[in-house]
Amino acid sequence: MRLRKDPRAEQYIEESDLVVSNPEEYKGKWHTVFKDNQELHVEFGMGKGGFMLGMAKQNPHINYVGVERFETVVYKACKKAEREEAPSNLRFVCYNVAQCMDIFEKEEADRIYLNFSDPWPKNRHANKRLTHHKFLEKYSQILHLKGEIHFKTDNKNLFEFSLNELSAWDWKMKNISLDLHASDIKGNVMTEYEERFSSMGMPIYRLECFPRR
Amino acid sequence: MRLRKDPRAEQYIEESDLVVSNPEEYKGKWHTVFKDNQELHVEFGMGKGGFMLGMAKQNPHINYVGVERFETVVYKACKKAEREEAPSNLRFVCYNVAQCMDIFEKEEADRIYLNFSDPWPKNRHANKRLTHHKFLEKYSQILHLKGEIHFKTDNKNLFEFSLNELSAWDWKMKNISLDLHASDIKGNVMTEYEERFSSMGMPIYRLECFPRR
Repeated sequence: MRLRKDPRAEQYIEESDLVVSNPEEYKGKWHTVFKDNQELHVEFGMGKGGFMLGMAKQNPHINYVGVERFETVVYKACKKAEREEAPSNLRFVCYNVAQCMDIFEKEEADRIYLNFSDPWPKNRHANKRLTHHKFLEKYSQILHLKGEIHFKTDNKNLFEFSLNELSAWDWKMKNISLDLHASDIKGNVMTEYEERFSSMGMPIYRLECFPRR
Repeated sequence: MRLRKDPRAEQYIEESDLVVSNPEEYKGKWHTVFKDNQELHVEFGMGKGGFMLGMAKQNPHINYVGVERFETVVYKACKKAEREEAPSNLRFVCYNVAQCMDIFEKEEADRIYLNFSDPWPKNRHANKRLTHHKFLEKYSQILHLKGEIHFKTDNKNLFEFSLNELSAWDWKMKNISLDLHASDIKGNVMTEYEERFSSMGMPIYRLECFPRR
């Protein structure tokens, strides 16, 4: 989906306290952005930010950074977060995930979330999928040695691709679920997509993974 | 499903040239059972043997041994195979897979097939599932160093369990499919179950795996 430029969005993002507009300057020192120096969890492709907002409220002892490349989408995330009184352990960044190593230092992220990433269904676009090994290589750099990726999607083909990609590139996987809402996982915060799809009875796929060390 | 004893089955199996009734004696020398000394592929829980029969016909350069614990089922497999003129590279064994190390030597099997294994849905029966690590440990012994397991099932929960079990016990996986008949895999021989389930539009799950070496 191509999103139209929204002139309000650009200015709003520039001025919002929720958005870190110079994220490169915080590489290696994200803890200085927040009130407390605590674990850093990042979502790549956060969309409208519902998941980040829910998690930040549920877990005040963790700092959250939601990364989203589209200005208009970050703008919507801001509006939503402000309506719901964004907690102080939450920030947004408008950035391309492919450049994530420009804003996060080696081993800086304790967890990475990938939720309902764009499936890029055409094979020739496989390297744009956020679980392509080109991205996995970057995540393995910025992830803490005990860090994990938590990935969920409603897209069967993307999940299948991800299982194969993670296996091929020798990542460890655990808590693999082929129907998240039929299993007894606790504390699941739903994204906007997830609410919609699971209310339609569609299965949600999920897994946790980390590079072999 | 509990199968009733059939007195004809016992006698038939005893007398059939298709069935190896003293399989322990061929441990380490299965090649002597067959006309040609060639790769050995084994199916554990072969059911009525349709898959083994199809594979044996399709691949005369490979020797096949189908293992099934229920006499009445082996009997049905024999009848079917005889009706369809069983090729000389096929044998059946009536045996419990839990004792597979009594009939196969270390590294003797070049491939193991697990097709539509009993899902044992209750958690307390997890250790009866043929992809439980208790079984994986045995398979890793009898598998050739370049050997693989090819596993398919229509049961989502069994597939999910197997993904987790294989990951936890550090097996390598590849060619994972969450909908076999939607992917472009070639030379797939369908089991009786598979024909029934996939004709109903149910997805078939499949993967290949091998122990980390």
